[in-house]
Amino acid sequence: MRFYSDNNATVCPELLAAIVEANAAPTRGYGDDRWTQGLDRAFGRFFDAPVATFPVTTGTAANALAIATVVPPWGAVYAHEESHVVRDECGAPEFFGAGLRLVSLAGAGAKLDAQTLARALDAMPPSVHTVQPTAVTITQATELGRVYRPGEIAALTALAHERGLLVHMDGARLANALVALGCEPGDITARAGVDVLSFGATKNGGLAAEAVVFFRPELARDFELRRKRAGHLLSKARYASAQLLAYVEGDVWRRNAAHANRGAREIGAACGAALLEPVEANEVFARLGEDGKAQLRALGFEFYDWGANGSGEARFVVSWDQDLSQVEALSRAIRALPASRGTETALHRPRRSETQ
Amino acid sequence: MRFYSDNNATVCPELLAAIVEANAAPTRGYGDDRWTQGLDRAFGRFFDAPVATFPVTTGTAANALAIATVVPPWGAVYAHEESHVVRDECGAPEFFGAGLRLVSLAGAGAKLDAQTLARALDAMPPSVHTVQPTAVTITQATELGRVYRPGEIAALTALAHERGLLVHMDGARLANALVALGCEPGDITARAGVDVLSFGATKNGGLAAEAVVFFRPELARDFELRRKRAGHLLSKARYASAQLLAYVEGDVWRRNAAHANRGAREIGAACGAALLEPVEANEVFARLGEDGKAQLRALGFEFYDWGANGSGEARFVVSWDQDLSQVEALSRAIRALPASRGTETALHRPRRSETQ
Amino acid sequence: MRFYSDNNATVCPELLAAIVEANAAPTRGYGDDRWTQGLDRAFGRFFDAPVATFPVTTGTAANALAIATVVPPWGAVYAHEESHVVRDECGAPEFFGAGLRLVSLAGAGAKLDAQTLARALDAMPPSVHTVQPTAVTITQATELGRVYRPGEIAALTALAHERGLLVHMDGARLANALVALGCEPGDITARAGVDVLSFGATKNGGLAAEAVVFFRPELARDFELRRKRAGHLLSKARYASAQLLAYVEGDVWRRNAAHANRGAREIGAACGAALLEPVEANEVFARLGEDGKAQLRALGFEFYDWGANGSGEARFVVSWDQDLSQVEALSRAIRALPASRGTETALHRPRRSETQ
Amino acid sequence: MRFYSDNNATVCPELLAAIVEANAAPTRGYGDDRWTQGLDRAFGRFFDAPVATFPVTTGTAANALAIATVVPPWGAVYAHEESHVVRDECGAPEFFGAGLRLVSLAGAGAKLDAQTLARALDAMPPSVHTVQPTAVTITQATELGRVYRPGEIAALTALAHERGLLVHMDGARLANALVALGCEPGDITARAGVDVLSFGATKNGGLAAEAVVFFRPELARDFELRRKRAGHLLSKARYASAQLLAYVEGDVWRRNAAHANRGAREIGAACGAALLEPVEANEVFARLGEDGKAQLRALGFEFYDWGANGSGEARFVVSWDQDLSQVEALSRAIRALPASRGTETALHRPRRSETQ
Repeated sequence: MRFYSDNNATVCPELLAAIVEANAAPTRGYGDDRWTQGLDRAFGRFFDAPVATFPVTTGTAANALAIATVVPPWGAVYAHEESHVVRDECGAPEFFGAGLRLVSLAGAGAKLDAQTLARALDAMPPSVHTVQPTAVTITQATELGRVYRPGEIAALTALAHERGLLVHMDGARLANALVALGCEPGDITARAGVDVLSFGATKNGGLAAEAVVFFRPELARDFELRRKRAGHLLSKARYASAQLLAYVEGDVWRRNAAHANRGAREIGAACGAALLEPVEANEVFARLGEDGKAQLRALGFEFYDWGANGSGEARFVVSWDQDLSQVEALSRAIRALPASRGTETALHRPRRSETQ
Repeated sequence: MRFYSDNNATVCPELLAAIVEANAAPTRGYGDDRWTQGLDRAFGRFFDAPVATFPVTTGTAANALAIATVVPPWGAVYAHEESHVVRDECGAPEFFGAGLRLVSLAGAGAKLDAQTLARALDAMPPSVHTVQPTAVTITQATELGRVYRPGEIAALTALAHERGLLVHMDGARLANALVALGCEPGDITARAGVDVLSFGATKNGGLAAEAVVFFRPELARDFELRRKRAGHLLSKARYASAQLLAYVEGDVWRRNAAHANRGAREIGAACGAALLEPVEANEVFARLGEDGKAQLRALGFEFYDWGANGSGEARFVVSWDQDLSQVEALSRAIRALPASRGTETALHRPRRSETQ
Repeated sequence: MRFYSDNNATVCPELLAAIVEANAAPTRGYGDDRWTQGLDRAFGRFFDAPVATFPVTTGTAANALAIATVVPPWGAVYAHEESHVVRDECGAPEFFGAGLRLVSLAGAGAKLDAQTLARALDAMPPSVHTVQPTAVTITQATELGRVYRPGEIAALTALAHERGLLVHMDGARLANALVALGCEPGDITARAGVDVLSFGATKNGGLAAEAVVFFRPELARDFELRRKRAGHLLSKARYASAQLLAYVEGDVWRRNAAHANRGAREIGAACGAALLEPVEANEVFARLGEDGKAQLRALGFEFYDWGANGSGEARFVVSWDQDLSQVEALSRAIRALPASRGTETALHRPRRSETQ
Repeated sequence: MRFYSDNNATVCPELLAAIVEANAAPTRGYGDDRWTQGLDRAFGRFFDAPVATFPVTTGTAANALAIATVVPPWGAVYAHEESHVVRDECGAPEFFGAGLRLVSLAGAGAKLDAQTLARALDAMPPSVHTVQPTAVTITQATELGRVYRPGEIAALTALAHERGLLVHMDGARLANALVALGCEPGDITARAGVDVLSFGATKNGGLAAEAVVFFRPELARDFELRRKRAGHLLSKARYASAQLLAYVEGDVWRRNAAHANRGAREIGAACGAALLEPVEANEVFARLGEDGKAQLRALGFEFYDWGANGSGEARFVVSWDQDLSQVEALSRAIRALPASRGTETALHRPRRSETQ
């Protein structure tokens, strides 16, 4: 029973059907097809804002291309120290950005707040000798399964814009955040001041279907050249675009995310006081003790260790296609664990990075 | 009736079935799945050589990652002036290679020969002031639809190795070349001295399914980091890998390429003296005159202009899924064109680069 | 009276004489001259170790070239958050390193210690998803005027090597550290396990005379190509090399640094309890209050603000050519300041970065 | 008797005096000194145009920084195949330009002409798949000692601007060209449409004194960050700037170049029919036969081989400080050579690249 990651999940029927439907006949390559050409309209409607939308195949590509497009090589990008761009992309932003710098900041729940950003900006007034503060990137939902409220995002983007920074959002799990908040897509993106978004569908039922969405389309000027140059312009782009259309035009994104979030909440409830973070999206972080984790694994549950060696911490991710019986079984098993759990706190929390 | 490019084609049934089959259940991400893990064995058998095989989604990514892995930033890579890496990748090799240099060479049929390479190497003896000759890249089949014979490749690789250069092959249309030659895959790759190959399946029936194949696996050491860093490590890698397995383990590659080559031969025969290049793979280049091209288009045939404006040249590409009736119709229409055709020769041949 | 920075200083007579002497007759370019050819022997003797020595014109070039030579683009380099590479080089290491990552660590006196490094390494076990820990860089003397003891360096290099990391030292003020410690040059470099050194002479009396010194000469393989490619191979290299020879072959480095250190000690003594850091080299950091600083400036003393706005902190740097009467005057003026000084501690300490 | 290269020359008295004069007292670093601050005015007067002027230490840095500032990573820069940027900079433009592409063009005398550029631009109409034509770079005087006339430059820049390209000039030997033409500095730069210039003084009597001069100062926006990031912002910039001022404010540039050109003319006259190129600046290219070259060397003349092995070709460069008796001796020795000289023409002309 797999709780490793939502990227272990299958492709959902609607998106697979979209692939098959796009396969009915030959069509022009490199995005000059009706699916890709329809993305701006569909995503514009989804976000209730004018957008420039570009399909890519991975979240890392989306993040790195989006960031590099709006940040010069000498730019500094403020990011949470637990973020995917910092921890799990082997330096992709630096590669795409020709040596730009990620500046790591701390924050509870893997969230940045405006105050922390302000302090960091104050701490290094730019001159010709320094990297130039240019952007901030936040993740929604975060790497600790937490969700930014619209007001939190707006506070960050207001500060960022005031200081001349652009705002990127890594939305690898945007649907999970939307479902958690019960708000409109535009509430946490365009209307909250986000400038460019990595829009993820892969973890939530897609087959290598991600997009970069510019809410200030004029920022996208160089994007197409960057994407081509990075080998991320698909000759048969329609298969990604068709999925993205099916994902946002119907209820797929919501239904899939709601299912995963519900499962995570159930597991979270079972964890009780062992929870490390409130469960808001589809991830559960808990300190179950090394013995507890071993017992779960003996029962056939698969999941990642979290935190430092011996911390007794675990991460469970619920996927769109997770069988509810598995969720129930895991919840029961967690409840059945003896109460005493590892208590050591790992100040410096290493974790396996294959987990995203 | 579309003769634009084989990247306009659909995904063939066997590869689509492989995707569906790989979708049966969740599995580990990032290539830690049985399909991806099986690639080395399957490709090793296909090429009759030990290999390290890595799936990627585009030919540009395959080329640029392969080249960058074996060439330092100060390296020079010798390539044909008509090659995809030179003309159609928006500088991807330079991007992935942190500023390496492509050195363009001429050659009939978009083929390099050993003599030309030798002269180019002699012409710039390396010192600390120069870029350092490091690799040569050839395309099989070439951008003009021509095919290197095993001996031609061996002569090039022998010279290259003697001079300390590695050899990369862009095999976006490798299957078409193999069918044209009627030889074993290893005859024009591993046994001919090729060090690293971009293996294409997308144009011949795949859905974003390409691979980088190292015939000297020790060269692949940094490849995985480079791929991740470039956003080309797929979290759901199995869908690409399953296609690649289905492609090489059965007869799919051969059947699809044979169909396309046959169609091209038929159209080539219809072109007669108007042919610009012998038809060896699935592409036809002919000088039909501007009037002739207009007549064909009036009949509903779609294809790219070739050569300079007003050169009267055209490119037809036949795809794996091309209806034979379309091939016959085009052949008839070409034969019916009046004999007089544009005769001006374009020394400097611009072409639309969207055509690959 | 200038206490801004030792890079405001003049060129000392011996090094100017070396330039004039090297100007006697034409000679071969690009380092193929007797001065440049003699560097390895002279520096080998200076450090009592086999070395490969390369002149460059700036400390930033020395640092960035040295680091990029031993760290791949996907490598992580651990550095103090106050270090020049992090704060004052506009991302030069990332540029030369094709997007490598600097990981900032804290530490008193702008010094790294082995424990901090160990924790940072433990906190991010490398996988294909992460940047790869490759090097650590330390500054001697540090950006806060502190000096690593030989044992401290040895502890760091032992840990680094055990973990597979190389060690770079930024020795922009190496002479000041050597004088402070009263030890042999090899004691804090080659024999302490340093792999590659940025050797500075500019701040201590040179005219754009710095060097990269490899203590493991085999690491220098690509260095010459990197340097040329970065525009840092001087055609008239002899003028830099002649200075470097004059600097290390005689007593110039020691005399100049001793003079500067002595001045700083005197000013430090005057600061008394206001000192932020013990004075070990030629820099003094003190909290004199905003009023105190204003009074000093009214008397004609020029120096940089330090710390956050309103922190009342100041930095004074004494140069090799500083008139002792200026040092005495400043010391007197500081002693004459009223006792009460700003006490607010700035947790996040911005500083002007033009100060190095 | 050295005729290797003008970079073998010494520093001329006036520029050495300028260094000494700038050394009289400490001053602010990083160009915040009166010499560096005076460059724009002095160069503005020299070129009779508004300029933004930045000192650097090498011609390679000047070229690469200038080009990278005006060309994006996906840009193509058209350059002569014999140019320094193509042949002698180890890929510096590609490094500074994050992977931009140099496109090599042919042309007699190492000169580009507008027609050749137009054909090259026509041959590759840009799309998202191609590198984007962005700039052209020309060398004045050229690597074959030839000089562009003002009208030739104007024709090139007019075409370039019409096509949306910017124009860079490598003026490593600009003074030699100016003396050869007897025109005003602005005639072949600002008024001829050049956008950015690498201004060389090192070969003509300077000590690591070059400058980047923007004739459209708004292009310089990012230049300062690029320069710092490349380690080319000198902390003691005044020593380069003082030289540059002394060079352009007086007659130094003209006197030094006139001396060198005169010597070259004399040697050229001695070569007679053996000349490969008309002598216009301070370089002489002649086919003297392998025997002839051996005889000259036996007499103590030092110079570079040119052309292919065995071509019998030689390059002589006359420096600002060349003793006239050496020029006369060489001329006599050449006239005394037997008439029969190697006649083989090397189509592909390798040459030692250390020669610039």
